[in-house]
Amino acid sequence: MTWFARLEPAQMERVVRMAMEEDAPWGDITSQALVPAEAQAVAHLATREAGVLSGEDLFTAAMELTDARLVVSFAVHDGERFAAGAVLARIEGPARGLLQAERVGLNFVQRMSGIATLTAEYVAAVAGTSARITDTRKTTPGLRLLERYAVRCGGGHNHRFSLSDAVLAKDNHLALLGAGGDLTAALRAARSRLPHTTHVEVEVDRLEQIEPVLAAGVDTIMLDNFSMEDLRAGVAQVAGRALVEASGGVTLERIAEIAAAGGDVISVGALTHSVRALDLGLDFSA
Amino acid sequence: MTWFARLEPAQMERVVRMAMEEDAPWGDITSQALVPAEAQAVAHLATREAGVLSGEDLFTAAMELTDARLVVSFAVHDGERFAAGAVLARIEGPARGLLQAERVGLNFVQRMSGIATLTAEYVAAVAGTSARITDTRKTTPGLRLLERYAVRCGGGHNHRFSLSDAVLAKDNHLALLGAGGDLTAALRAARSRLPHTTHVEVEVDRLEQIEPVLAAGVDTIMLDNFSMEDLRAGVAQVAGRALVEASGGVTLERIAEIAAAGGDVISVGALTHSVRALDLGLDFSA
Amino acid sequence: MTWFARLEPAQMERVVRMAMEEDAPWGDITSQALVPAEAQAVAHLATREAGVLSGEDLFTAAMELTDARLVVSFAVHDGERFAAGAVLARIEGPARGLLQAERVGLNFVQRMSGIATLTAEYVAAVAGTSARITDTRKTTPGLRLLERYAVRCGGGHNHRFSLSDAVLAKDNHLALLGAGGDLTAALRAARSRLPHTTHVEVEVDRLEQIEPVLAAGVDTIMLDNFSMEDLRAGVAQVAGRALVEASGGVTLERIAEIAAAGGDVISVGALTHSVRALDLGLDFSA
Amino acid sequence: MTWFARLEPAQMERVVRMAMEEDAPWGDITSQALVPAEAQAVAHLATREAGVLSGEDLFTAAMELTDARLVVSFAVHDGERFAAGAVLARIEGPARGLLQAERVGLNFVQRMSGIATLTAEYVAAVAGTSARITDTRKTTPGLRLLERYAVRCGGGHNHRFSLSDAVLAKDNHLALLGAGGDLTAALRAARSRLPHTTHVEVEVDRLEQIEPVLAAGVDTIMLDNFSMEDLRAGVAQVAGRALVEASGGVTLERIAEIAAAGGDVISVGALTHSVRALDLGLDFSA
Amino acid sequence: MTWFARLEPAQMERVVRMAMEEDAPWGDITSQALVPAEAQAVAHLATREAGVLSGEDLFTAAMELTDARLVVSFAVHDGERFAAGAVLARIEGPARGLLQAERVGLNFVQRMSGIATLTAEYVAAVAGTSARITDTRKTTPGLRLLERYAVRCGGGHNHRFSLSDAVLAKDNHLALLGAGGDLTAALRAARSRLPHTTHVEVEVDRLEQIEPVLAAGVDTIMLDNFSMEDLRAGVAQVAGRALVEASGGVTLERIAEIAAAGGDVISVGALTHSVRALDLGLDFSA
Amino acid sequence: MTWFARLEPAQMERVVRMAMEEDAPWGDITSQALVPAEAQAVAHLATREAGVLSGEDLFTAAMELTDARLVVSFAVHDGERFAAGAVLARIEGPARGLLQAERVGLNFVQRMSGIATLTAEYVAAVAGTSARITDTRKTTPGLRLLERYAVRCGGGHNHRFSLSDAVLAKDNHLALLGAGGDLTAALRAARSRLPHTTHVEVEVDRLEQIEPVLAAGVDTIMLDNFSMEDLRAGVAQVAGRALVEASGGVTLERIAEIAAAGGDVISVGALTHSVRALDLGLDFSA
Repeated sequence: MTWFARLEPAQMERVVRMAMEEDAPWGDITSQALVPAEAQAVAHLATREAGVLSGEDLFTAAMELTDARLVVSFAVHDGERFAAGAVLARIEGPARGLLQAERVGLNFVQRMSGIATLTAEYVAAVAGTSARITDTRKTTPGLRLLERYAVRCGGGHNHRFSLSDAVLAKDNHLALLGAGGDLTAALRAARSRLPHTTHVEVEVDRLEQIEPVLAAGVDTIMLDNFSMEDLRAGVAQVAGRALVEASGGVTLERIAEIAAAGGDVISVGALTHSVRALDLGLDFSA
Repeated sequence: MTWFARLEPAQMERVVRMAMEEDAPWGDITSQALVPAEAQAVAHLATREAGVLSGEDLFTAAMELTDARLVVSFAVHDGERFAAGAVLARIEGPARGLLQAERVGLNFVQRMSGIATLTAEYVAAVAGTSARITDTRKTTPGLRLLERYAVRCGGGHNHRFSLSDAVLAKDNHLALLGAGGDLTAALRAARSRLPHTTHVEVEVDRLEQIEPVLAAGVDTIMLDNFSMEDLRAGVAQVAGRALVEASGGVTLERIAEIAAAGGDVISVGALTHSVRALDLGLDFSA
Repeated sequence: MTWFARLEPAQMERVVRMAMEEDAPWGDITSQALVPAEAQAVAHLATREAGVLSGEDLFTAAMELTDARLVVSFAVHDGERFAAGAVLARIEGPARGLLQAERVGLNFVQRMSGIATLTAEYVAAVAGTSARITDTRKTTPGLRLLERYAVRCGGGHNHRFSLSDAVLAKDNHLALLGAGGDLTAALRAARSRLPHTTHVEVEVDRLEQIEPVLAAGVDTIMLDNFSMEDLRAGVAQVAGRALVEASGGVTLERIAEIAAAGGDVISVGALTHSVRALDLGLDFSA
Repeated sequence: MTWFARLEPAQMERVVRMAMEEDAPWGDITSQALVPAEAQAVAHLATREAGVLSGEDLFTAAMELTDARLVVSFAVHDGERFAAGAVLARIEGPARGLLQAERVGLNFVQRMSGIATLTAEYVAAVAGTSARITDTRKTTPGLRLLERYAVRCGGGHNHRFSLSDAVLAKDNHLALLGAGGDLTAALRAARSRLPHTTHVEVEVDRLEQIEPVLAAGVDTIMLDNFSMEDLRAGVAQVAGRALVEASGGVTLERIAEIAAAGGDVISVGALTHSVRALDLGLDFSA
Repeated sequence: MTWFARLEPAQMERVVRMAMEEDAPWGDITSQALVPAEAQAVAHLATREAGVLSGEDLFTAAMELTDARLVVSFAVHDGERFAAGAVLARIEGPARGLLQAERVGLNFVQRMSGIATLTAEYVAAVAGTSARITDTRKTTPGLRLLERYAVRCGGGHNHRFSLSDAVLAKDNHLALLGAGGDLTAALRAARSRLPHTTHVEVEVDRLEQIEPVLAAGVDTIMLDNFSMEDLRAGVAQVAGRALVEASGGVTLERIAEIAAAGGDVISVGALTHSVRALDLGLDFSA
Repeated sequence: MTWFARLEPAQMERVVRMAMEEDAPWGDITSQALVPAEAQAVAHLATREAGVLSGEDLFTAAMELTDARLVVSFAVHDGERFAAGAVLARIEGPARGLLQAERVGLNFVQRMSGIATLTAEYVAAVAGTSARITDTRKTTPGLRLLERYAVRCGGGHNHRFSLSDAVLAKDNHLALLGAGGDLTAALRAARSRLPHTTHVEVEVDRLEQIEPVLAAGVDTIMLDNFSMEDLRAGVAQVAGRALVEASGGVTLERIAEIAAAGGDVISVGALTHSVRALDLGLDFSA
């Protein structure tokens, strides 16, 4: 497995509780009206398609926070592949709680596994090259930590977490530089005021911008929407003086060719901006 | 336009602030390092594809809550269609704030418009029939209110909001009925204890279940994963004694045929469980 | 017992913690100044008057959240009747915690049992008729979930929970109908846009309004402040085409006659708008 | 007017928002379904019985926070008396907002005015004596600040706010005193450790306890459930060495006689533990 | 030990969680990147200087809330003195959690012990006199409860907690008295409206103000920035008719002389307004 | 001025509101008891010692959030120096609000200006060298954002914000490296999994550790508690292959010599771990 960082338990609990309250603000009236309080149930989390798991702890938290007597055991773990038809987990305990928590738990694990599975496809497509696949800030409002974790489960890497923890100067920033507008000077001035731990990345749209940016001593240069030809030329021109990130219009069809151009990072908005929930469901046993 | 209910301003503010804090916990260091505090900018929200708008108030809130001096004016409004290449809104004001709010604002309006646009396709496909298209509880954790609103923007209808406001008895509930297990009696007993305002809907998997369910006096009967032949038979058998909802495996390809079977409601999980962000972006003016 | 739905544990914990913080923002200085930290105590929750219990879990939570070593055991349970002088519960553990939690615990159980006891009087008064007793939205701000639960403990039913989960059109809504002002058409249009799970109830003030309302296909018709004669006439006129709710000026003196008129629902604001706390107290043992 | 302290605006906003969210978590669907967005309305807050007003700012906040365009003007102000049939306030603005906020606003002003009105009765009954009427900690969970303010509106005084801001040693504390159990010594030790700003009050059940308590130099001595004869004897015995509070079983019938006994403070649990909502309502104009 | 009141567990948990989230919003990436998940560690909380301990429960909470498997045992307890080089506590458990919680735990215990140690110096300097040392409201925003507790650990006393729980009229209040400006009358009027449990303290700047203040029957009189000569004269003049508090420019150099003047209370802003963190650290064992 | 990043308004409002609620949970009873509601006042924020300002926006927020009619105008701005006796700001408006907000406002601006002033001393001491002065994570729990801002106001730089946004491997991490314990390999492995934007810094205790750390390609190497001789040797050995940070026991006395050794960064825990509040106060005008 490529990733390392687990989610903080307090963060998971908060987001799961928020989802629980959204889905049952004053309880599950169907279960309480129809299912006896003492009824027990066993269910299996099964999959109708192959994929990579992400979200086991959130699924478990949804169950346990709804009824502490529910026992969840996962046979597959985050970051592991599974085949269509696999049984991923077994849940046992009070039926009312299990029915109440079902949709909340599924909503997390289906979406996160959808991200992990798609990420794994991109990662597989660049195997053997120097490039890493990263996410972007095109995440679902409120769920960035979870979606970045899902990217890691799929073997991808994370980009900066937010606007606060790294500099990424885009075309609009460069167009708005202060008086004088000397790009190299502006970047140097910025670096002199930023924490020494702050990574500085700059996006360029064409080859001529590369040298003035490198002259300022940036850490990463992003080649945005470059043609394949220009991308290869850009990588050659940078020549290891900074990391190279390719970005813009990256698809599964194009990614192998992009990776072959020799950059270090390929950022893929589609990993999180258009999530397809994986087809998972709960099967109740008799 | 088919829908009516706007989002509550306090709810919008809360979710936008959450997203803002997630994306810039201690500010946008790139803009502050590179863009002069006094720089002004104008940008246009433009679209690269046709669709239906949803989320204008959230986009506006993202701008205004970041910097109260930003002025946003939408030329297209929620629920309205637009063509590829259209300019949806104009934003003007301090450049730092505009750059900081850009991604938060886009993340909302791209996802919500993606839902509205997809919903509109389903709604168009059933035009002329008696069926309404509804969402499900397969929504993104924490964003159900927004996603249901987006469904309304696309001309769809909402299903029950949560486990707390209507009964929807599914196969697993029926399998877990209390002692005796008499379905009709159990449903009657539930109704006698539930608020008189609570809608009671029951899912059935096969035609034989219809009569015992109707005998209990339910409001809606859901025919789940019925073959087309059985669906038509089911509608005929119910014969107006309850509303009929068709559900399960609904796709754009199948929906016209399903609607033609004569039911009242078709619920479509895909409206929200697999959101594709619409391709919108901000274009900055010189 | 007539009711079913327990309170969600997370909701109880939140409201109990709020009350604890209100009553002891920086601790119980009296107990800490006078009572040794190691002192143990036993107390009994006793009642000076007969009633119906409600709030045992909140009382227990107040004790356990103040000091996890406090052990509470109830001899009577929510929804059960007790006589004057009965011992309802026994509490044992650290004296400081018991003294600190006493008032918070009592404030919950006294008020909720007051509601349950009053509700039971109304329910008893309509025994043998077709009518159910329901609460209204005249609840204490912030405590609606608890007060509705107390109504259920007393054998009553709940009305809609809030403005969001059912339609209840009152005289003021009808006076403000849109252009045209055709009541039947307006109600039909509303229903076509509302979720199919939304119950539609309409209040009428006089017999002539009944037919236009029924023509729109509403679920419940509320006969508000009708004379007894008109109420009986109204029930006869509706003739099962919708549920009938009687409302307005309902008192213990009048309710038997109202119920005898044959309606389905009688809503009683007094259940919650004027709560008399039941006379319960803690008796400490030597 | 006897009172001085207004509620903090931030506190009012918090409790009003909580009530608003409880009563309309996803909006007022009735108004949105039936009343045109552009409809305007005028309503008057009228009373069906005489009383003392409390809660005007909360009523106003409920309106303004629901729709900032609603304009509220009160003709009567907090602490002022009004006759049955009086018009207390006028509200004008968008009809949807007015209808949505109606019940929330009324729930506050009816309960608070109920407390103020009852308090004023007690205060009138002791006019001309040295006694002040105070509330207790028997308040509604979460609403203590509001209910204490309502007591002030009625001309009453507040007792300590919580367990944290004054010492009030009751029988159970005295029974649990530390080793030795010397009451005078224990009270002196407590005072030596408490902030010098902390008021120390001690409850006694019989006349013999008065001297040992006074020997410790307490600020107030509470004579709890004393017979009238003992109460007069107790006041005479204290003889100004501490304030005297009478407590226990205080009713409107008994209070004049209690006050005549000459104490300084009479605490009345009934002011807040059994609130009767005043009969106020909104009348809409044509 | 002089103090009594422990911190409420819920308050400690809240402030520790806030600090944890501030210091590791999405985890400790260094430990997760370098330290194996299964690594165990033992560390000792050691001190490089002598002092008085405060904050053991917060340190423990920081560890346990980060990883419930961490076991913390303190050899020294809050309020106890320790020598330079002492080992104060032992922590054992998962290395990642211990490393993540280290700085949060230290930040609490270093600051609070710094306050306790400084307080103890002031307390020692007034030993044998009638004066108690108190804190002021010059505390760190958000940490007043903790800092007051640290003062108690050092043997000091607390002053009023906030503007809400006692009256302290300063020169600016006196200058702004209402119409008439009669100080004695104004103080009497205030007292007649305040709860009888509210302590009334008044600050005076010169000897002539003492009599009019005492005439109103205040509880404490503060002699602010008095010369030593005037301070002694003031104490003599008050002559036990109220408590006397000396305040203003109190330093370790001057405090013995101030205390010798015979007042009851000396308030010291420096206890909390300029905290020096005690030099504590974690030593990891091999 | 050296710094750039302002505090986010939402963050300032949150922390100021927290402080306001802590200092006046149910209002300022002294001002309400003594000062007429209509009284107006003017006050000046004056300083008794020279320094550098920080916190003007927090001071202003404390005033404006307490009473929106208070008008604050600063004559000196954050980051600017002032002399003893200077008037920093003028406040005018309702006297009650001004008195209530006084201590909250002062608590912020005194502490933050204390940090800024101390930082400026350190910065001045290294003028003319290549070294920047940075803060550490030894900040007050809950106030890190404010204290880092104050450091910037004083001309200092910030270090990483938290455990989440940069790697800083200390001796304890290195001692706990996984199986094999090859430092260079472990650092390389970590970097391959971390975001490419993550800065990697490693602390070393002695000269021999420098080469294995540099071999892994780190961004910054921290020379911790080095003798002056070793520090100079270390800087020479690194020779620009990474940034060099000096740390450990840095004081105003030693810092010039440390800076002369030629490193890039000197981190100073004392900037924030032992804050001395600057001597500022409010002077009220007649």
